[in-house]
Amino acid sequence: MAMGDPVILQVVGYQNSGKTHLTCTLVEEATKLGLRVGTLKHHGHSGEPLTKVSQKDSSKHFEAGAKVSAVEGEGELHLTARLDDQAASHFLTLYKQMNIELILIEGYKTWNYPKVVMIRDKKDESLISELNHVIAVICASEDSIHTDTPVFLRQLERDYVPWLIDYIRGKHHHE
Amino acid sequence: MAMGDPVILQVVGYQNSGKTHLTCTLVEEATKLGLRVGTLKHHGHSGEPLTKVSQKDSSKHFEAGAKVSAVEGEGELHLTARLDDQAASHFLTLYKQMNIELILIEGYKTWNYPKVVMIRDKKDESLISELNHVIAVICASEDSIHTDTPVFLRQLERDYVPWLIDYIRGKHHHE
Repeated sequence: MAMGDPVILQVVGYQNSGKTHLTCTLVEEATKLGLRVGTLKHHGHSGEPLTKVSQKDSSKHFEAGAKVSAVEGEGELHLTARLDDQAASHFLTLYKQMNIELILIEGYKTWNYPKVVMIRDKKDESLISELNHVIAVICASEDSIHTDTPVFLRQLERDYVPWLIDYIRGKHHHE
Repeated sequence: MAMGDPVILQVVGYQNSGKTHLTCTLVEEATKLGLRVGTLKHHGHSGEPLTKVSQKDSSKHFEAGAKVSAVEGEGELHLTARLDDQAASHFLTLYKQMNIELILIEGYKTWNYPKVVMIRDKKDESLISELNHVIAVICASEDSIHTDTPVFLRQLERDYVPWLIDYIRGKHHHE
């Protein structure tokens, strides 16, 4: 079966603004709809270094200089790679290769895909104008936010989760 | 630059026969030659379950049901996937996608690629005849082994590591 291009949605915003929680909720809801979901998260400079995959022998291969090391057991694959090319297109080709239909991306705010922006309050408003392809804003406070996209209150998941899932379904059927 | 197919070499044999050590040595030597090396290890049923990637948020995505979850920071990618398809060809396509020139595979003894077989002594001889595409045998003891391929003594890395690297170089230039 020939597959269309995956639907891509980015979740961007400040640390502790709820990006991971929203991404996980969207993974669950889209999976319930039967979509094959992939996620990609950018590990920023602020946190601790990327933890090593703890599976012992595979990490020995990697430390010996392998560009890619993987261990697979019963269909679960753990892969570690040194990428020469961190362009978005390179990641997306990998996900397409695995027949992913929806890619949810946490971070990489300079990438050019549709974005949900999570902010805390009006002071974060400037972030919205710095970003391209913003489709919705989720704000932790009831401040009035200046933007021409829908603005949702973070507490009201029952409003914005179905809205985002509708967005995803629409794009998926369009592909 | 169009790349040829990667050279593939399997390292198979009993547990604790030295497969991981040999694989790491070949990774190091081939990397010194400028080859982009990838490794793949089969996690058998005998050990503990595959450890979870410890990077926290990415494993939340995976637990939420994502087929593929990855975290990337400064060019290092940690990816976890549920595979529908554990055929060799599916793995190899992924590695080719990452421009890997040499794939070293630990385990998967039923796969159809050239194999180095690591055995302990004459009692393990039967393994050799069960396998296809055996190019060399490495034996931990000085027993006389019945096979029509070269047999190396495990202690004599200075013999078989260069032999295997020559094999790899020959195949690589042939591609």
